[in-house]
Amino acid sequence: MTTRTCRTFQTAPAAVPKDDTAKYLRSGLTAEGFQAPDWLVPDLEDGTAPDMKAEGLENVCELLPDFEFPGEIWPRVQWSYDDETVRAQGREEIDTLVRDVGDDIDGVVVPKVGRQGDVQRALEAVASAEADHGHPEGSIGLSVIVETARARSDLREIARLRTDPGGERLTALVFGPVDYTAELGGRDLGDGRPRWDGLLEALSNEASAGDLLAIGGPFDDLFAERAGVTVYNADGYADQVEREARIGLDGSWSLYPKQTIQANRIHTPTPAELERDVDKIERFNAAKVEGTGAVTIDGQMVDEATFKNFRNTVETVRAIHRTRPEQTDELYDEGLLERALELELSYR
Amino acid sequence: MTTRTCRTFQTAPAAVPKDDTAKYLRSGLTAEGFQAPDWLVPDLEDGTAPDMKAEGLENVCELLPDFEFPGEIWPRVQWSYDDETVRAQGREEIDTLVRDVGDDIDGVVVPKVGRQGDVQRALEAVASAEADHGHPEGSIGLSVIVETARARSDLREIARLRTDPGGERLTALVFGPVDYTAELGGRDLGDGRPRWDGLLEALSNEASAGDLLAIGGPFDDLFAERAGVTVYNADGYADQVEREARIGLDGSWSLYPKQTIQANRIHTPTPAELERDVDKIERFNAAKVEGTGAVTIDGQMVDEATFKNFRNTVETVRAIHRTRPEQTDELYDEGLLERALELELSYR
Amino acid sequence: MTTRTCRTFQTAPAAVPKDDTAKYLRSGLTAEGFQAPDWLVPDLEDGTAPDMKAEGLENVCELLPDFEFPGEIWPRVQWSYDDETVRAQGREEIDTLVRDVGDDIDGVVVPKVGRQGDVQRALEAVASAEADHGHPEGSIGLSVIVETARARSDLREIARLRTDPGGERLTALVFGPVDYTAELGGRDLGDGRPRWDGLLEALSNEASAGDLLAIGGPFDDLFAERAGVTVYNADGYADQVEREARIGLDGSWSLYPKQTIQANRIHTPTPAELERDVDKIERFNAAKVEGTGAVTIDGQMVDEATFKNFRNTVETVRAIHRTRPEQTDELYDEGLLERALELELSYR
Repeated sequence: MTTRTCRTFQTAPAAVPKDDTAKYLRSGLTAEGFQAPDWLVPDLEDGTAPDMKAEGLENVCELLPDFEFPGEIWPRVQWSYDDETVRAQGREEIDTLVRDVGDDIDGVVVPKVGRQGDVQRALEAVASAEADHGHPEGSIGLSVIVETARARSDLREIARLRTDPGGERLTALVFGPVDYTAELGGRDLGDGRPRWDGLLEALSNEASAGDLLAIGGPFDDLFAERAGVTVYNADGYADQVEREARIGLDGSWSLYPKQTIQANRIHTPTPAELERDVDKIERFNAAKVEGTGAVTIDGQMVDEATFKNFRNTVETVRAIHRTRPEQTDELYDEGLLERALELELSYR
Repeated sequence: MTTRTCRTFQTAPAAVPKDDTAKYLRSGLTAEGFQAPDWLVPDLEDGTAPDMKAEGLENVCELLPDFEFPGEIWPRVQWSYDDETVRAQGREEIDTLVRDVGDDIDGVVVPKVGRQGDVQRALEAVASAEADHGHPEGSIGLSVIVETARARSDLREIARLRTDPGGERLTALVFGPVDYTAELGGRDLGDGRPRWDGLLEALSNEASAGDLLAIGGPFDDLFAERAGVTVYNADGYADQVEREARIGLDGSWSLYPKQTIQANRIHTPTPAELERDVDKIERFNAAKVEGTGAVTIDGQMVDEATFKNFRNTVETVRAIHRTRPEQTDELYDEGLLERALELELSYR
Repeated sequence: MTTRTCRTFQTAPAAVPKDDTAKYLRSGLTAEGFQAPDWLVPDLEDGTAPDMKAEGLENVCELLPDFEFPGEIWPRVQWSYDDETVRAQGREEIDTLVRDVGDDIDGVVVPKVGRQGDVQRALEAVASAEADHGHPEGSIGLSVIVETARARSDLREIARLRTDPGGERLTALVFGPVDYTAELGGRDLGDGRPRWDGLLEALSNEASAGDLLAIGGPFDDLFAERAGVTVYNADGYADQVEREARIGLDGSWSLYPKQTIQANRIHTPTPAELERDVDKIERFNAAKVEGTGAVTIDGQMVDEATFKNFRNTVETVRAIHRTRPEQTDELYDEGLLERALELELSYR
């Protein structure tokens, strides 16, 4: 749990071979309601073709100043722990972004990092661009994609960089399952890629231990075909996002506006969940007057630890309500929302 | 596997708002048969209300000298890796316990520990109380509850403290799922809290690598309601304890006498299991006369490694028989128990 | 993913109490087709009875020079992280093997290693035998069996030994579930041993991070009985090997020729898998002419990361075709194999 909100990490190719090469970038910047991502990630890496990367960078630098995007902007640049040529391109992209739109971005996303030392290199690249172009120290964040065996091996050490001098800019750990599966030699035997449950549990833990955000990986089976009709694969994506929410990932990766709707919704407590936890806190608050440390409500013992879980639900709703009141107003009954906003949340 | 027995880690609030504030403590101390826990944990932390903690401490200090509890006694004190005020209360509780009932307790349980350095602080708090009140060095144990992201992150390093000077008093690693889930921001989407399988596997491993006990977390859905009738949730708890036993946890947390019965039973080999493994060892002992390193029994190859698993079963039964002969006598046929006690257990 | 091939790690007792004590060793050395293992592991440890170990060592030294085995030969010697007597026997066995058949073996397999320091001792034992008998530095490999809590705890550190001076000979990390389960006190409650999914995922990751092979553990429920008829347990073993293949283990342990057939088959891409991935690469190669970074094929987005997974399939087939053309010729249509061998595999 961190106080920063990133229910949705939506990547958009920075340039595509269409009349308007910035089409997807523009539609991400102007999305509304539950379709608006918390983080928009203009993608200069795998989503943009090699021969369109220069145009992609131009698109990002030209468009960002024109929009008042209510969430955060985190361009993804090129990087590779084992290829200095690619890292040099990444450093140039970081430098250009910080120089031209340093005030419009919250940070950069660096993929394919290796061990702790490679993440340190990325931290230094950002620090150096930040200093060169006169931005306040620490104002440009760094998020990394965990998608190599080396980064998984050093996950604990990478997360701990945040407490080092210069490491405060480290903000999110994002999973990259496709590269990761390729690097480990994982196989799809007809039932999809491995889920990497162990990695995801560790990602959630190390992010929480280091006060970082933890974000799930992309789901690329966007559409399913049945007897000649192609439909959006709503079940497949929702199943993945629910698994991620359950183990405490803060947000999910979106490749597509419908995915953004779903991830925003799933990472927002449901009305039933909010009702249940508001109710338990209200009943607990009444019971604590009687002075017992642990009370039983509906057959479940409630102590300070149980209480914290109920409080998480309410605090998440309050945070979303601050930045996206149109979403909470749409989702909850007025009466329930009011109870959630006014509830006493101290255990003692 | 350690030689110390803790099939059941039963917490009992040290004081509750009833006529007899020590009611649950007293009933834990006098439980009999399969209802008697291996470890009784008088709870001064979350199970006792803030305004009853002083009385809880008095209850513990007054009652313990009056009972001859056949298992071990491990009071749980207050602690917090990120709150020095709470730690100061914990140190005082440890000091009082060691001063007043140091001969009646086997150690203290410290919750909400953080990284390795915080566990070192807890080790020092116990060592200091022990020295101040003239107890032999190492006579007061320390068990910790793993329920923060930091403790999970440092699990390997925490377990290795046992081999440091002064670390020998470290005895058990106990899982605390409720606080842990709250800290990671895990969600109950209608099907319960996450199981944290990765953490439990690591807990079992690091405990075995460090010669520590590994104990599962509490199960707080004590009762289930069906069409107006409330019943004890026997299936839910037994499912959890069986999962814990399967992966080598030494014991399970109990909040309730019926849970203690179930956990004691599940962590004791079943008659069928004992019969099966005694039979395999007897047949292996016969086969080894013929001088083959690996023999096939019922389609399964048996070598020294397989043999160790069979031997674990028999040794667990022998250990329980030493401390709780009334339980083994009740559970097994006389003939089977006799075969288990007399079996030759050396592989060569 | 490493370039070295070990789909099958087949152990064969070095001596058994039969007229021909080298029976199983000989049959492993002469196996043909899909029954021929990639690695043959003459077993001087648990598979050979204590009083036949000397004869087992003789068998290995006598037989190896007589056969042209097309795969690799890796004898398993005795070892124990906590018993110097057993380690001394292991050092002697290593010395004898390197002296007598150093040119015929690819390395030795050392079981029951403990923490990183114990693996260093094993590396030194091999280095010393190699130097004493005039073999080129690094020519005799070392593979270790991960089957103790200490080795699991230090897995990351053990894998990193490969990058230390003298560590290059480290080749494979092999899982040993039977000893491991015994050491952790795991239980078979009627549904088999625990699967240790967390350990296997870590094994795959650390092996990939360290350019090592990762190999699954033995499956010892070789036969199943149904109404009086005993049959080979083909489903049980295949289920395990498929789980291992899915998460990127390079190969599986075989105890029996039928297991070798199955593991060789499962670790070889199926015709459908090869057809699917060849087709996707062909269509991607056509699409990339149009200059888009990510294209959608059958509803799945294909970028450089997705592409790597398809390429893995083709490269695995090419590697097997180089060493076992009789297997690839048998398995694939001529047309498909030709397409796989001729495909352009560069992403850009």
